[in-house]
Amino acid sequence: MTADTSFPSMYDCWLGGRPLGADALTADERDLLSRVAVAGVSPVLRTAREELVRGLAALTGSEPLPVSGLAKQQHVLIAPPDSAAAAAAWADLGRSPSPRPGEAEVVALAETAGPGGPRRLVITGSTEVACLHAVFALLRRLQAGQGLADRGLTGLRLTEATANELRMLNHWDNIDGTIERGYAGNSIFFADGEVTRDLRRVTDYARLLASVGVNAVSLNNVNVTRAAARLITPEHLPRLARLAEVFRRYGIRLFISVGFDSPIAVANARTADPRDDEVAAWWRRQAAVVYEHIPDLGGFVVKADSESRPGPHVYGRTQADGANMLAAALAPYGGIVVWRAFVYDCFQDWRDRSTDRARAAYDTFMPLDGAFADNVVVQIKLGPMDFQVREPASPLLIALRQTSQAIEVQVTQEYTGQQKDLCFLHPQWHEVMNVPADEAGTPTTLAGVVSGQRTGLPHGGVAGVANVGDDPSWTGHVLAQANLYAFGRLAWDPAIEPRVVAAEWVTQTFGPAEPVFSTVLGMLLDSREIYESYTAPLGVGWMVTPHYHYGPDIDGYEYSRWGTYHFADRDGIGVDRTVATGTGYTAQYQPVLAKLYEDIASCPDELLLFFHHVPYRHRLRSGKTVIQHIYDSHFDGAAGARRLLDTWQSLAGQVDQARFENVRRRLELQVANAAQWRDVVNTYFARKSGVPDERGRRIY
Amino acid sequence: MTADTSFPSMYDCWLGGRPLGADALTADERDLLSRVAVAGVSPVLRTAREELVRGLAALTGSEPLPVSGLAKQQHVLIAPPDSAAAAAAWADLGRSPSPRPGEAEVVALAETAGPGGPRRLVITGSTEVACLHAVFALLRRLQAGQGLADRGLTGLRLTEATANELRMLNHWDNIDGTIERGYAGNSIFFADGEVTRDLRRVTDYARLLASVGVNAVSLNNVNVTRAAARLITPEHLPRLARLAEVFRRYGIRLFISVGFDSPIAVANARTADPRDDEVAAWWRRQAAVVYEHIPDLGGFVVKADSESRPGPHVYGRTQADGANMLAAALAPYGGIVVWRAFVYDCFQDWRDRSTDRARAAYDTFMPLDGAFADNVVVQIKLGPMDFQVREPASPLLIALRQTSQAIEVQVTQEYTGQQKDLCFLHPQWHEVMNVPADEAGTPTTLAGVVSGQRTGLPHGGVAGVANVGDDPSWTGHVLAQANLYAFGRLAWDPAIEPRVVAAEWVTQTFGPAEPVFSTVLGMLLDSREIYESYTAPLGVGWMVTPHYHYGPDIDGYEYSRWGTYHFADRDGIGVDRTVATGTGYTAQYQPVLAKLYEDIASCPDELLLFFHHVPYRHRLRSGKTVIQHIYDSHFDGAAGARRLLDTWQSLAGQVDQARFENVRRRLELQVANAAQWRDVVNTYFARKSGVPDERGRRIY
Repeated sequence: MTADTSFPSMYDCWLGGRPLGADALTADERDLLSRVAVAGVSPVLRTAREELVRGLAALTGSEPLPVSGLAKQQHVLIAPPDSAAAAAAWADLGRSPSPRPGEAEVVALAETAGPGGPRRLVITGSTEVACLHAVFALLRRLQAGQGLADRGLTGLRLTEATANELRMLNHWDNIDGTIERGYAGNSIFFADGEVTRDLRRVTDYARLLASVGVNAVSLNNVNVTRAAARLITPEHLPRLARLAEVFRRYGIRLFISVGFDSPIAVANARTADPRDDEVAAWWRRQAAVVYEHIPDLGGFVVKADSESRPGPHVYGRTQADGANMLAAALAPYGGIVVWRAFVYDCFQDWRDRSTDRARAAYDTFMPLDGAFADNVVVQIKLGPMDFQVREPASPLLIALRQTSQAIEVQVTQEYTGQQKDLCFLHPQWHEVMNVPADEAGTPTTLAGVVSGQRTGLPHGGVAGVANVGDDPSWTGHVLAQANLYAFGRLAWDPAIEPRVVAAEWVTQTFGPAEPVFSTVLGMLLDSREIYESYTAPLGVGWMVTPHYHYGPDIDGYEYSRWGTYHFADRDGIGVDRTVATGTGYTAQYQPVLAKLYEDIASCPDELLLFFHHVPYRHRLRSGKTVIQHIYDSHFDGAAGARRLLDTWQSLAGQVDQARFENVRRRLELQVANAAQWRDVVNTYFARKSGVPDERGRRIY
Repeated sequence: MTADTSFPSMYDCWLGGRPLGADALTADERDLLSRVAVAGVSPVLRTAREELVRGLAALTGSEPLPVSGLAKQQHVLIAPPDSAAAAAAWADLGRSPSPRPGEAEVVALAETAGPGGPRRLVITGSTEVACLHAVFALLRRLQAGQGLADRGLTGLRLTEATANELRMLNHWDNIDGTIERGYAGNSIFFADGEVTRDLRRVTDYARLLASVGVNAVSLNNVNVTRAAARLITPEHLPRLARLAEVFRRYGIRLFISVGFDSPIAVANARTADPRDDEVAAWWRRQAAVVYEHIPDLGGFVVKADSESRPGPHVYGRTQADGANMLAAALAPYGGIVVWRAFVYDCFQDWRDRSTDRARAAYDTFMPLDGAFADNVVVQIKLGPMDFQVREPASPLLIALRQTSQAIEVQVTQEYTGQQKDLCFLHPQWHEVMNVPADEAGTPTTLAGVVSGQRTGLPHGGVAGVANVGDDPSWTGHVLAQANLYAFGRLAWDPAIEPRVVAAEWVTQTFGPAEPVFSTVLGMLLDSREIYESYTAPLGVGWMVTPHYHYGPDIDGYEYSRWGTYHFADRDGIGVDRTVATGTGYTAQYQPVLAKLYEDIASCPDELLLFFHHVPYRHRLRSGKTVIQHIYDSHFDGAAGARRLLDTWQSLAGQVDQARFENVRRRLELQVANAAQWRDVVNTYFARKSGVPDERGRRIY
């Protein structure tokens, strides 16, 4: 990524590039890969060629030569969708590219270009951007040795399609340069109230994102300050347009987070009522200004009526009223409104046990299903609360049928260790995306719903809250780069297994050599279970230090306005969300899941306390009592953290010093954090329940 | 204080000045008060005259004329200590002014100036500054009608002496303009990294302080940043000297808080080891520079080895080594080192029950008794912890015999409602200052010890952490002005009763008219008990939101590194600090108190949980069980807060609108805060103990 040797190895992430072994390719294959042609001209195709050349140079050890598409020698050809070579490639596959607009399909296949022509490896896709993604897909395949070991290049037929039109990273960057919930330094987009002029780091970032198929970014925090509201004015737009140009070359569209009260914040209007004609007109004018600077802007991201942000509820209007008004302003330009569903009462009275924050998104948005304009996407967090390490899937995600939606995951580790503790998040995302969302006998998963594919809705996809900053490693913790990588892969293909994604990332980042490969892979795959074990038990969540959200504070949110409780007393713990005796939340699920969660006998152990209030001596499906499970899992979790450190230490000398030390230091913090969690949780519950640990271990 | 009518009434605090009633003075007395003379010339005497003229003008309704000390008509005379009139006045009293340097004695007495001379009211004192204080004492007496109602001016013999040489306010102002633990706006001394140029507000503040006898101020935060460490360099000294000049006119000496690592922070030295010759030499040179700019600087205030501040322990040296090295640098100029005793382990392991933060100051400093240089004053918090609403007196304060000391109280309401909740603190200070500190049959109080009077030590006194900022009311809450007033009065005379001080303040601030006078007086005097009732019970303390220290969080510090625990479990609560079974802290007291606290039967209820861990059903000396006391006091406390609001509301129209609204708004916040405390504390203990409220009130 950079030739500047002052940058440490960690800067390149998974794009460091490593030569393949001498016997990975035949001489004939090396010859084929030594020439590159492009059957077209455009900024994205130029990027695709550059990446292909750079990637092949790293893999083969010599830089490919540019040749014409009419070259007589065998070569690799990037063929845009409207080229003859692309048509021939699809014909060879016996089908056409996916017809659905927005969907991307990438193809790389080796073929002979008709009678007498040279052999060509054709890279194409359903769009020019898909061609770029196909380049990265091919390089990924080559890097991993996949498809080469058995059949070599000759037999290669690589096709990948995504159903998710939207594969977006949301940055919560403030224009003063800080990042809300950022754990890797300051913003790479903003400093001192302005959009950065320095495009080098932005370019390197765009490249990282494109390599995993991300096609959209919002840059600024969804909590839009008065100053940041001005991003949609000519004060900032020229510089934003320069960033948009960088991202455009990598097939990524820019979104802007806007405040719903922007007419007031920017133009001193007397209202931001979405039914007010002047307000709507202001937004239309503003959209015209924005699109003049950035003609392919993706659209706006909006956090409204959420955590004291202004929104349509302020004016007695619905979420649909608000979203549709903005959507009308963007429609002429093909823009969409990404409207967050994170609407709940954050001034809840903890004394009131009938109100349940988990219900909020569904209760607010479900009645509006069908009421949103075609170019509105409702962005819904993966669980009903807020990115705890364990939550059930959001019932709203499963239930919406007439609303384009995106699932929101959090790549930044707000509640999952803040890039000090290791927590590879793909397993959680994969688990939720693959929840059954069957209806009327049609088997599908949640992923099938959010893509919009099953319901025939115009939009759909995946959004992730980004975990990057200006740290040399981008993510603070080098191993947290795996979460950024996995986000892209998940958004592209929600079905791909965490183990596969982790293996890809480890190979590309550290190489395939043992023992590093298996060791790091094992650490990633164990990490979420370890983190879950030493933090809040059995799905109850929220036992964290308020505001910071790192480290234990069992009662930290218990008497607060945030709607996040565990109700532990001397007899038991958990939140009764059943229909029979609780808040009735379980009824928000389709019947199969509703029944599963409602019945204490069938409710999965790992979600028991999310759905039920039980005595400490209640026996889990595992056979353990709840209290003994708490003790055991916390001793095990802290031991697991220690094991992660010991395991990593065993790699001393086998990983470059910079990355080794980066990870080692963070694992030491994790060991301390896990011990604190273990002792605080166990002590809290031992003091409260009076039940001793069966194994007599030290509790304080 | 100001003629600018844009300033609200609250700006003037207790110096607003109110005309006496028509019949408060005879015509003869009014004639005497209509002429003012000064028998000397100096800046402080000029201030004394100005204040006398201004005060008499306000009281009598007409401005006194300046006359010569040889005037034939009766007049008021300010007589500096070396004047003939002063000598005559002391002769009239039949004694001499206090001989102890630093002690101040003020006198105002009406006399006839020898045969044939006019009648004169002579105001004098043991120093020029004491003359200024005597002016304020006389005005206070006149304003209150004290001494006039029965005998009139003719019989007036007002003498007051303080034993406390040091009566200092510590400001925790940062040079960026913020104030640590400040609840009344920003600094009046600093902004944007510089000392203010605007001396108007500083002048008004100096006047307020002088009026209650304060004679020293430190301006900057004891947590000295690298930037603030440069205050002792020529970069800031010229402006600091201008502030010193303002304070000097009001008899107040400036202190500077210095960082112990200043040689490193300011001069990039390799060490700050107090035994290092170069370090000592650097401090000597620096002292020379400082005193060149401010020849009468009081000295340095130092927070060392405390809450991660650097100090002599870093270099394996004692607190005395550190303090004495600085003292040697200041000695040539008559400066003193005020060395804080707030040294404790703030990286304590909560699992370790044997370490007791309460022991820390005594354990660190008692072995050094006698080791400190003559110009070192060890400044010790009034209790062993940190300004909780209820703590026993610090055993170190009582025990030191060969060390000059100052008691530190917190005027700013960090843990006592943050100037949102009403809490008149004088009762707490008075209580601690009047703790018996008898030894070997000599009856005395703690006040007698800290003054140094009893032990014959060179220095001693009282320091308070200031509660002011640039808010129009100075203190945010208008009624918190009473704490600033009371601090000065306490420092001057620790024996004076809170009821008397409160009455003085109310009269001067709101006037003597009923119902305002008795209503506000009652509110002040009830307020500490009310605040204590709804917060942490029975002396256990610390159930506050971490860092912010406002609002309840019962376990907020329970599993933390700060050494502040309650150890509540399902069976009981409290910290065992006995010698018999606990941390042995009680042994730090002299035998009478040690025995009192050690024995659960004699330990006062209000400190029970500070000294003992007891079952919830333990019966207090009051006859109630601990758990029932918790319930009762919390219901009562919240009701008390509501009563304060209702009481204040009854004064609508009888207090000027600005002050009425200021207090009303804050009392509303207090009502909400008290209800939250009540419900959180009661719910926490009901859930944990399982014991129901005897009276069946609502607990959640």
